[in-house]
Amino acid sequence: MCQILDKIIMTEISKIEAQQLVVEPFHVDFTGRLTYGILGNHLLNVAGVHAARRGFGMGLLHSRHYAWVLSRLTIEMEEMPREGIPFTVQTWVEDVYRLFTNRNFSVLGADGHAYGYARSIWAMIDIDNRKPVDLTALYGDDIARYFTQQPCPIPKPSHIKPLEAAATPAATFPVRYGDIDINEHVNSIRYIEHILDLFPLERYARQRVKRFEIAYVAEARYGDELVCYVDASEDPVFTVEVRSRSAQPGAEEATACRAKIFFE
Amino acid sequence: MCQILDKIIMTEISKIEAQQLVVEPFHVDFTGRLTYGILGNHLLNVAGVHAARRGFGMGLLHSRHYAWVLSRLTIEMEEMPREGIPFTVQTWVEDVYRLFTNRNFSVLGADGHAYGYARSIWAMIDIDNRKPVDLTALYGDDIARYFTQQPCPIPKPSHIKPLEAAATPAATFPVRYGDIDINEHVNSIRYIEHILDLFPLERYARQRVKRFEIAYVAEARYGDELVCYVDASEDPVFTVEVRSRSAQPGAEEATACRAKIFFE
Repeated sequence: MCQILDKIIMTEISKIEAQQLVVEPFHVDFTGRLTYGILGNHLLNVAGVHAARRGFGMGLLHSRHYAWVLSRLTIEMEEMPREGIPFTVQTWVEDVYRLFTNRNFSVLGADGHAYGYARSIWAMIDIDNRKPVDLTALYGDDIARYFTQQPCPIPKPSHIKPLEAAATPAATFPVRYGDIDINEHVNSIRYIEHILDLFPLERYARQRVKRFEIAYVAEARYGDELVCYVDASEDPVFTVEVRSRSAQPGAEEATACRAKIFFE
Repeated sequence: MCQILDKIIMTEISKIEAQQLVVEPFHVDFTGRLTYGILGNHLLNVAGVHAARRGFGMGLLHSRHYAWVLSRLTIEMEEMPREGIPFTVQTWVEDVYRLFTNRNFSVLGADGHAYGYARSIWAMIDIDNRKPVDLTALYGDDIARYFTQQPCPIPKPSHIKPLEAAATPAATFPVRYGDIDINEHVNSIRYIEHILDLFPLERYARQRVKRFEIAYVAEARYGDELVCYVDASEDPVFTVEVRSRSAQPGAEEATACRAKIFFE
């Protein structure tokens, strides 16, 4: 009875979490615009708040030995807001399948116009055995009641093709203290930052990143090296593969993530 | 007349800028506590808001061809707040001398207890000739009316001795896209992150950084390499010197910054 009542009084508003932000001085790159890394951080943060306030957040899950794992993140921006500009990040759940859920985002200016949108795909794992959890069995209607068909007018993530082993990596980053999150893995945002650091400043001076797609494949840990390969054959669209290589002698490289960067 | 009235109605409150924050999931290190880099970012951001709201912010200055330059930053924390914890950063001006001004900070919990404090020293330069500006001549009473003797019970910055040229740098970082700020220099916060990345994860697992001091000496630019030297002779206190080396053949190293890190 109480649940039915809840459903009746639930408005579209309550399905969407919104956070008002401002572009801080240290959140911009040398062009004076918000960076993809910081924006990614804002998106994931608002996602966490949305989930926590609706009863499926990380804190509650952790006590039940489940955790959300970010599988894909796609951000496409018509324009990146400049330093000092106030903006709002909105997030909502588009739908839930057995093994993953789609969460979308909009990045809006003070006048309501869209700077851009983002799409993300999440799975849930059992922390003890690292295996995926059946979301429909676990949540069913609990998440479904938050579905909303708020528009997210950017293409779904494309297939990012695995790269052939290239002769020379574009760069190698040893995993350091600042890369590691509370789960002792390289944090999702750091990959975005490392990948954007593969491109020379000159490119950012004459082009901007219109769209950034990343697919997370396997966790890298402290002690690993991140070996980055770049396919520039479709310039100004670049495919990047980051492989982690453990410090053990003879260790093979394992794909940590793949990304596709659309300059224009 | 209006100025006199302003002075009379000015309370201690209006001399202090405060910002309420929360420790976000991606703002913590693997121990689950706020990082020094992110905290430094918060401090500088609130400093900017304090200055802008009182008529001596970067935006206004830039139009007059002046800019604030951070010369020293010292942060000392009894404890770093954990993920999810709300906290407040306060900042105020302690005093102004001819060539520099002291700005202090407190980091307070929701119950008002202090997580820690920070001290910073700023100079102002003329953007055209990069020379320091006489602050007392430029501002005089305009800044002085905001002085407040709010307590900041941490020691003033110590002398950080220049390091002898060490045989081997602890690490070398090429300056990349993400390091560069809107002035096309390596941003102040990135030095803090690079310096903390010099220490192995094992140290952070058994010790914490109680105090972090940094003195900025000269700007590094894109194309430079940051060569980091560490003096570990006073372990658990470390002195770090970051020198920038331009890509030109035969280029000498120039000190970019020096830091002192107090583990406990």
